[in-house]
Amino acid sequence: MKKEIVIIGGGPAGIITATTAKKNNKEKDVTIIRKEEKGLVPCGIPYVFGTLESVEDNTMGIKPVQNLGVNFVFDEVTNVDFDNNSLKLKSGEDIQYEKLIFATGSMPVIPPVEGKDLQGVFTIDKNMEYIKEVKEYSKNCEEIIVVGGGFIGVEITDEIRKVAKKVTLIEAQPHLLPTAFDKDFGDLYEEKLSANGVEIKTNTLLKKVIGENNKVSSVELSDGSILKADMVVFSVGYKPNTELAKNTCLHLGYTGAIWVDEYMRTNKKDVFAVGDCAEHKDFFTRKPSKLMLASTAVFDARIAGSNLYKLKVVRENHGNLGVFSTSIEGLTLAAAGMTETTACNESFECIVGEASVIDRHPGTLPDKSPLVVKMVFSKESGLLLGAQMAGSKSVGELINVIGLGLQKGVTATDLITMQIGTHPLLTAAPTKYPLVLAAESALMKLR
Amino acid sequence: MKKEIVIIGGGPAGIITATTAKKNNKEKDVTIIRKEEKGLVPCGIPYVFGTLESVEDNTMGIKPVQNLGVNFVFDEVTNVDFDNNSLKLKSGEDIQYEKLIFATGSMPVIPPVEGKDLQGVFTIDKNMEYIKEVKEYSKNCEEIIVVGGGFIGVEITDEIRKVAKKVTLIEAQPHLLPTAFDKDFGDLYEEKLSANGVEIKTNTLLKKVIGENNKVSSVELSDGSILKADMVVFSVGYKPNTELAKNTCLHLGYTGAIWVDEYMRTNKKDVFAVGDCAEHKDFFTRKPSKLMLASTAVFDARIAGSNLYKLKVVRENHGNLGVFSTSIEGLTLAAAGMTETTACNESFECIVGEASVIDRHPGTLPDKSPLVVKMVFSKESGLLLGAQMAGSKSVGELINVIGLGLQKGVTATDLITMQIGTHPLLTAAPTKYPLVLAAESALMKLR
Repeated sequence: MKKEIVIIGGGPAGIITATTAKKNNKEKDVTIIRKEEKGLVPCGIPYVFGTLESVEDNTMGIKPVQNLGVNFVFDEVTNVDFDNNSLKLKSGEDIQYEKLIFATGSMPVIPPVEGKDLQGVFTIDKNMEYIKEVKEYSKNCEEIIVVGGGFIGVEITDEIRKVAKKVTLIEAQPHLLPTAFDKDFGDLYEEKLSANGVEIKTNTLLKKVIGENNKVSSVELSDGSILKADMVVFSVGYKPNTELAKNTCLHLGYTGAIWVDEYMRTNKKDVFAVGDCAEHKDFFTRKPSKLMLASTAVFDARIAGSNLYKLKVVRENHGNLGVFSTSIEGLTLAAAGMTETTACNESFECIVGEASVIDRHPGTLPDKSPLVVKMVFSKESGLLLGAQMAGSKSVGELINVIGLGLQKGVTATDLITMQIGTHPLLTAAPTKYPLVLAAESALMKLR
Repeated sequence: MKKEIVIIGGGPAGIITATTAKKNNKEKDVTIIRKEEKGLVPCGIPYVFGTLESVEDNTMGIKPVQNLGVNFVFDEVTNVDFDNNSLKLKSGEDIQYEKLIFATGSMPVIPPVEGKDLQGVFTIDKNMEYIKEVKEYSKNCEEIIVVGGGFIGVEITDEIRKVAKKVTLIEAQPHLLPTAFDKDFGDLYEEKLSANGVEIKTNTLLKKVIGENNKVSSVELSDGSILKADMVVFSVGYKPNTELAKNTCLHLGYTGAIWVDEYMRTNKKDVFAVGDCAEHKDFFTRKPSKLMLASTAVFDARIAGSNLYKLKVVRENHGNLGVFSTSIEGLTLAAAGMTETTACNESFECIVGEASVIDRHPGTLPDKSPLVVKMVFSKESGLLLGAQMAGSKSVGELINVIGLGLQKGVTATDLITMQIGTHPLLTAAPTKYPLVLAAESALMKLR
C-alpha cells in the first residue's frame, strides 16, 4: 500500500508529529501505526491508582486526532527497508512511505535482581491492559514496596498509600527526586509522605525479591533488613524502545537512543525519530542526555512534523531542558535546569539565591501558601542556570517562567528588572515576587 | 537634621526604593517620610469589603522594613530646596539629603459631575482611615453604584455585591476592563457578575448624582435613566500626586507625571522619582504611558534604589509593559502587552492565535477548568505583541511567562519550540499547552 507520511508509535510524540505534519502538509496523507487501539495519558498513570476511578478515565482519545485527518493502523512494524522507503507489518502488508518517523517511546527498566519474575512484581509500563492488571492486583495487597523515588515513584506511592494498608518507598540516592531537586527540596516530600504513613528508605537498594509459591512474600534490602511484601512496583527509570531501530541498523547514539540531528533527522534519508526513542542533548553541556518527558517528546514532534519536507521551523536549538513539576498532598514541587548539586558536579562555578514568601497578598487572605524559590546562577556572568520551587498549584506555571528565562538566557539582573503581573488572590506581592527576590539575593552575593 | 537617602512616600514604590537602597549602600542611612503610620496593601483594598474581615487585615507592615535598617518619619514634606539638597517638614524641621526620591504615588480621579460632593459619594483612596469610613458607610447601604469597570471597579463590585442588596456597575466603554482586554474577554466578566445579581451598564456615563438632605438618593445616567442609590463609588482611574513636585518646579512630562530618565532620575541633581508619580513609557511605542501598577512601581524602585550613587543595575529599558491579572467567582483573567484592539489602534499589522484547552490532563481529573488563550503577533515578524487569558488561578503565573516572553522579544516560532513543564494535576497536557497551540494557530495563518 502506498502512503505518504507514516509514524511508528502513537504516544504523545507520535500523535503530535502526525497532527503537526497534517497541519503543515494538508495535501499529504498521514498515518500512525500503533499496537493498541486505546492509549494512556502517560503522565496520568499514577492517578489511576487513587484519584481516578478507573484506568479508562486516563485514556488519550484518538477521535480528535482522526478529526484532524490522521489515519490509524493498529498493527506492528516488523521491518523497514530504508533503501526502498518501505516497511512490513506483522499482518503481512507492505507499506511504501515518503517520510517515516520513529516514535517508538520507551520501556520501563527492570533491575536484574533475583525474584524479579515472581508474581506480584510490576513496572509502570505505559500500556492500558497492563496497568489495569497492576491496579487490579494492588487491590488485594496489604504491603506494597515501591522501588525508585523519582517522579513516577513518588506519585505512585502517594496514590497507592491512599488505598493500601502499608507502602514503603525505597530510593538508592540520599534523597527523593534526586535528579531534579537538591536535598532541601527532596526532603519536603519525604516529610509529606512520612506524615501520611509511608515508610521511606533512602540510601537503600533492593537486593532481592523473595517468593513463596511463586508469589512475592518479602524483599531483602541493602541494609540487610527483610520487609514483608505482597507487591513490588519498580519505577527505576525507562530505556528507549529501539528494537526495530536496532534491527534495521539505524544509527544509535551514546545513550542507546536513536541518533538525530537538530531537526530530528536520523542518519537515513526521509527517516526521523522523536520522543523517548530519540537521543537528546543537555541544554547546558550538550552532552547526550537521558531526558524523557512527554513535554520534550512533544517539542521534538513539532520540530519533526513541521520540517518533514522543507526546514520551515528553524529553531535555535540549545539542547533539551528539563522542566519538571509534581504535586502531592497540596505541596507542589517544580524545577527547571540545573540543581546546585548538578551544577557543582558539572564544575559550574555558581551562586545561589533564595526567597521564601507567601503566595497571596496581604498574607491574611484565605487560600495562601508558603512559596520557596531557590535559583542557581553562574557566578561570573550572572546567567541563570536553574531553579527549584515549592508551593501551591500555581508553581506549575511559575516554573515555566523560569523555563522560558533559561531558553532566553536571562541573568540575575534581567530578573530583578523583570516586569511582572501580580494580584492579591493569585500571586505574591509585587514587593515580594519570589523570582525577583531570589535573583536579588544572588546578586548581592555576586557583588 | 542631616540624612543621607530620603524617600518621600511609603507605598510599595517608596518601601522598595528604601530597602533596595539600604541593601546596596549598607553604610548609608535611609529614611522614609510619610504621613500615615499604617499603610494599606494597595491591590488588597477591594478585598476589605467582602473577603477580609477588617480593613486592618490589609495592612502593609513596616516592621520588616525597619528590621532591614530603614527609618520612618511620620510627617509631611512641605518644600524642597534642590540647590541646597534640603527639605522642610510640616513639623518645621529641616532635613539635609544626599539623595532624594519622590514616591508620592497617585490620587483617585473624581469626575467633575454635579453632586460629586454629596454625602455617600466615595473614591478608592489608598488611605486606611478613609477606606475604613467607606466600608463603614457601605454597611448601611442597600443600593450601591460603582462607576468605572476597570480592575478596581470590577473587583470592588464583586466584593460589595457579596454584602450589599443591589449593586450596579457603570462603564463608559462598550465592555468591562477595556484597557487590558478585548471585548470577548471583558464579556466573560460581565456574564459572571450578571449571574451574581450585579446590574451592568456599559456604553453608559454617570451624568449627575442627585441628593436629598445633602445625601445621595439617586443617579442620572447618560441613557436618561434614574437609578435609586444610597452610595456611589468612583473608580475611574488615578492621577499622579505631583503637588509637591509642581510647587518645587520639578520638570513634569506629557502626562503630568514627573519626568524621569531610564534610571528614574529627574531633571534635578540627586533627585529621583518612582512609581505612580513618575512618568512611564509604553513598551511598544515609547509614548508616555499612564500605566500605574504596584508591580511597575516596584520595578522603578529597584532601579532607583540600586542606582542612586553609581549606575549598577544597567537594564535594557524597553519601556513599561502592562501585565495584569484579576480573579472573580473562580474565573481568572490575565493580560500582558497589547490587545487586538490596542494593536489595531496603534496601526500594528497583526495576526491573532487562539487556543481553548482544559488545564489538567486527563480532563477527567477533579479541579480542572477551561483555559482560553488569545495571542496577538506582528504579522511580518511573528513577534509577540500581547496575550489575554481566562482560566483558573494558575493563569496568574501563566501570564508572567508571556510577560517575560514580551520582554525577551519572543516570536510565534520561539513559542512553538518552547520547552515547557507540564503535570496532570497542574497544567494542560504537553500536547495541548495553550501558549504553544495559540502560537501555532497564528503561525498557520502567517504562512
